[in-house]
Amino acid sequence: MYRTNTCGELRLSNINQKVVLCGWVQSIRKLGKMVFVDLRDRYGIIQLVFSQNKDSKLYNRASELGREWVIQTEGKVAKRSNKNFDILTGDIEIIVSEFNVLNPSILPPFTIEENTDGGNDLRMKYRYLDLRRTSIRSNLELRHKIAFETRCYLNKHEFIEVETPILIKSTPEGARDFLVPSRFNKREFYALPQSPQLFKQLLMIAGFDRYYQIAKCFRDEDLRTDRQPEFTQIDCEMSFVNQDDILNIFEDLIKYLFKTIKGLIVNDFQRLSYCEAIRLYGSDSPDIRFEMKLIEIKDLTTGKGFIPFDKSEYVGAICADGCSFYTNKQIDEIATIINCSQIENKKLIYVRYNLDGSLKSSVDKFYSSKDLLKWVDRIGAKRGDLVLILFGETKKTQLQLGTLRLQIGTKLGMRNKNHFKCLWVVDFPLLEYDNELNCYFPNHHPFTSPKNEDIQLLQTNPKIVRANAYDLVINGIEIGGGSIRIHDCELQEKILTILGFSKKNIQSEFGFLINAFKYGAPPHGGIAFGLDRLVAVFSESNSIRDCIAFPKNNSGRDVMIGAPSIVN
Amino acid sequence: MYRTNTCGELRLSNINQKVVLCGWVQSIRKLGKMVFVDLRDRYGIIQLVFSQNKDSKLYNRASELGREWVIQTEGKVAKRSNKNFDILTGDIEIIVSEFNVLNPSILPPFTIEENTDGGNDLRMKYRYLDLRRTSIRSNLELRHKIAFETRCYLNKHEFIEVETPILIKSTPEGARDFLVPSRFNKREFYALPQSPQLFKQLLMIAGFDRYYQIAKCFRDEDLRTDRQPEFTQIDCEMSFVNQDDILNIFEDLIKYLFKTIKGLIVNDFQRLSYCEAIRLYGSDSPDIRFEMKLIEIKDLTTGKGFIPFDKSEYVGAICADGCSFYTNKQIDEIATIINCSQIENKKLIYVRYNLDGSLKSSVDKFYSSKDLLKWVDRIGAKRGDLVLILFGETKKTQLQLGTLRLQIGTKLGMRNKNHFKCLWVVDFPLLEYDNELNCYFPNHHPFTSPKNEDIQLLQTNPKIVRANAYDLVINGIEIGGGSIRIHDCELQEKILTILGFSKKNIQSEFGFLINAFKYGAPPHGGIAFGLDRLVAVFSESNSIRDCIAFPKNNSGRDVMIGAPSIVN
Repeated sequence: MYRTNTCGELRLSNINQKVVLCGWVQSIRKLGKMVFVDLRDRYGIIQLVFSQNKDSKLYNRASELGREWVIQTEGKVAKRSNKNFDILTGDIEIIVSEFNVLNPSILPPFTIEENTDGGNDLRMKYRYLDLRRTSIRSNLELRHKIAFETRCYLNKHEFIEVETPILIKSTPEGARDFLVPSRFNKREFYALPQSPQLFKQLLMIAGFDRYYQIAKCFRDEDLRTDRQPEFTQIDCEMSFVNQDDILNIFEDLIKYLFKTIKGLIVNDFQRLSYCEAIRLYGSDSPDIRFEMKLIEIKDLTTGKGFIPFDKSEYVGAICADGCSFYTNKQIDEIATIINCSQIENKKLIYVRYNLDGSLKSSVDKFYSSKDLLKWVDRIGAKRGDLVLILFGETKKTQLQLGTLRLQIGTKLGMRNKNHFKCLWVVDFPLLEYDNELNCYFPNHHPFTSPKNEDIQLLQTNPKIVRANAYDLVINGIEIGGGSIRIHDCELQEKILTILGFSKKNIQSEFGFLINAFKYGAPPHGGIAFGLDRLVAVFSESNSIRDCIAFPKNNSGRDVMIGAPSIVN
Repeated sequence: MYRTNTCGELRLSNINQKVVLCGWVQSIRKLGKMVFVDLRDRYGIIQLVFSQNKDSKLYNRASELGREWVIQTEGKVAKRSNKNFDILTGDIEIIVSEFNVLNPSILPPFTIEENTDGGNDLRMKYRYLDLRRTSIRSNLELRHKIAFETRCYLNKHEFIEVETPILIKSTPEGARDFLVPSRFNKREFYALPQSPQLFKQLLMIAGFDRYYQIAKCFRDEDLRTDRQPEFTQIDCEMSFVNQDDILNIFEDLIKYLFKTIKGLIVNDFQRLSYCEAIRLYGSDSPDIRFEMKLIEIKDLTTGKGFIPFDKSEYVGAICADGCSFYTNKQIDEIATIINCSQIENKKLIYVRYNLDGSLKSSVDKFYSSKDLLKWVDRIGAKRGDLVLILFGETKKTQLQLGTLRLQIGTKLGMRNKNHFKCLWVVDFPLLEYDNELNCYFPNHHPFTSPKNEDIQLLQTNPKIVRANAYDLVINGIEIGGGSIRIHDCELQEKILTILGFSKKNIQSEFGFLINAFKYGAPPHGGIAFGLDRLVAVFSESNSIRDCIAFPKNNSGRDVMIGAPSIVN
């Protein structure tokens, strides 16, 4: 061993102990006839002392050390006179008797400190230096803990982790597949899995009963901020369960993680249907850290001569607490953010409920104070509040109001990253109708089961069929989702037919699954959580990139190693 | 929940309890006015009883059940009169009051029992049915346990698991890479990693100190038996360590796994240099469950007129205990197995040391009994033993003798699968010289460090330079390997130059690593274990395929899902 101890573990109780330490030079300070070196490793920082009076040769060599040099040092633990309360070893220091440069360092391209001067691109190019920064490293330590505690919890509940293959078959699951040409089978390709979905269902058919896997998944999508071409899921499946069984066991998993990782007791998760989530929050993944619900006021607004309201399917409002002082300019800015076009009368309407009790709105021409009073009454606005109103086609307007709600919530400081609210959104629609392509798409995936009571609607009105599908939302971020699957081959074929697959395609694309259903498939369902996102929420990070060791940039590129690249 | 209990947990203490169970029909037996159904799930098998007298309608329905149907059943736990000692629930049975077919099954293509009538191809095609067999399922349960206990051990020793990317850059690491075309960057490719080698070294440079990952790796190789295009490694790396530190900590890991998983205490692992392994066992991964060492007898054989021996660089022997009765035909068969050509005088020579003390050899013409006595004396053969001798170029002959040794060991029952012997092979040569291509290849990989004392030989005689490289061998199977890495950019460039890389290629292929070495790279090293092989050894399986949930066949094909396939 190169060392007897790490840089984070020595304390007053180690005084006079002879130790050998290894690490990186974090900083060097010369004070008179002394050189102080902060030595850093993964476990902490410790002060090394070199005194000119004691050993001038050693002192001179120490003076020549540079930032990020790797050294091995021998010395005695001593009590420190001027304690440093910022570090755990702040009571002591090492009086160095010898040291040894293991590897020097050239000048790093940015300072390796919490407030680094390195821009995003530079930090990504030198990711191995960026990873030396405490915040990034501790995110990855947190990720490690979350993954391990997840395994502990699931193991305790009889789940077994099974690895499913990465080189699989391309199936039309939604996004585009990454393809891998086969050398032995010319003109044939493997595909990288978008999820282990089919394999975990086959494991249920195989009688594995409770499966999980922390699995790499791949989507060749157009990349947006905080999407990665490869990402990690906590992927789970259970047999002989209904929706509530799954929600209960995985709600307990999330509670367990909050408790063991963050020491937090979180309340029982609210359960909200998809319809209610849209109606109340204008989102299928609402942030319920704050109220500010959407209130419909269409009935209070009709027949007063304001044509845009009269003609709208929906008129809805939210109340911004204490914002009656917002200027028209400020309100216009908010409108811009949500892309609420000022033309075509799609204006953001406001009502200022002033502190003196007076009401001022952008539609004063049409509505009396008495009218407006009825509005604010229903909306629950108090004096000093600002009411913001949007109108139009119901769902579209609700979603816009939802975006507005988040903006205002952020502005008003209602979305504190260290305050956590978890929510199940349930009863998602089974299908989505694409008006342009004139066909149905699965809202979740084609293996999701419809609610029993809605099955007869598959023939008559597929659009309103609800699925046994659910999402876990934390602080407005979709962290996971799943469903009870179809386990009946006829129902599976029926759904695939509705989704536009021909009999022939069903056989060629999903034949092995449909066939497997014929050999005793148990009722089953599952869920998958995005580990990257879960870590980002737990670590209160702004980006999942800060929670992935070697992320790709927005163009799907690893700028450190230079991938993808031209191959000979 | 569909059930109150699983099929494996009920005991006499549950008598009279009302339970609901789910599972698969393993078998149906009709005995007079009774139907007995064995119901199976992952946790066990339990007997269900239907009596015609009690409920003839239920009895009739039960009579119509088929193998592998999935049912939900309600009943009462009762004491069993004729106990079944083969199953843990053998003291009890369920008197069924109601049941419910959750999913019927058509006739499976093979019987789902330990001694299945399904051939390999059929079992692979219906892998989800094959996985229902106890032996395969318990291999995967074992795999799950090994992976989890490995994590427990490594976590306790301050290792953190870090996920490294799957979409990386093609580097010339040895085998062929699987390539993934990039959609956004035309004509560019990602490569799938053959190992996380470069990333784990970068994590050491990043100061992560102790890393591990149970990682999928990929090699587009010509497939042999028990090779898979994707396989799983327990991949580890540590900073500030020398070779012994690594051997010690990972020897303890393996001991820990034997203890917790199999309840076995294994002895300290023998450590053998590569040269000794070849000299004594004719293998760089010797099976040391039995002795039968190679003995060189060249000096005893020269000058007696037997030209083949006189002309040979090496004459070596092994002793087959108690095999003096082998006929010439049997010995010829053994010779065939090791491809020891009968032509060109490359014959397998034998000496029979008969029970009566007489000696009979295939070279009697040249050697007297006195000569032969000297041989058997050195070889340590006893009366009744058979001595087998090969001759020729030293290393080649040693390897042939090694193969012969394994054959004889197997024949003599010296290679019991439930007897475990672990061994470290150390001091591997750094480089291998390819006489045909006229160049050096790395014996391990290009990042392996040479032994300090051999560095000066890099200029003069690279062939004999030893590396800080080691393999873990269990029962003659290479389970893991690793090395202390180079952490100095100049030495790394020198090695790459010896390996034939031009300055330009070094920069384009490994530039990011060489560059990273300049920013304070610590001394580091690591190891990787093949999880598939480790599970196969622990489960005493014949093939790693029985330890992988969804393996590929010898052509790299998943015949269940039909991958690879033609893609539109």
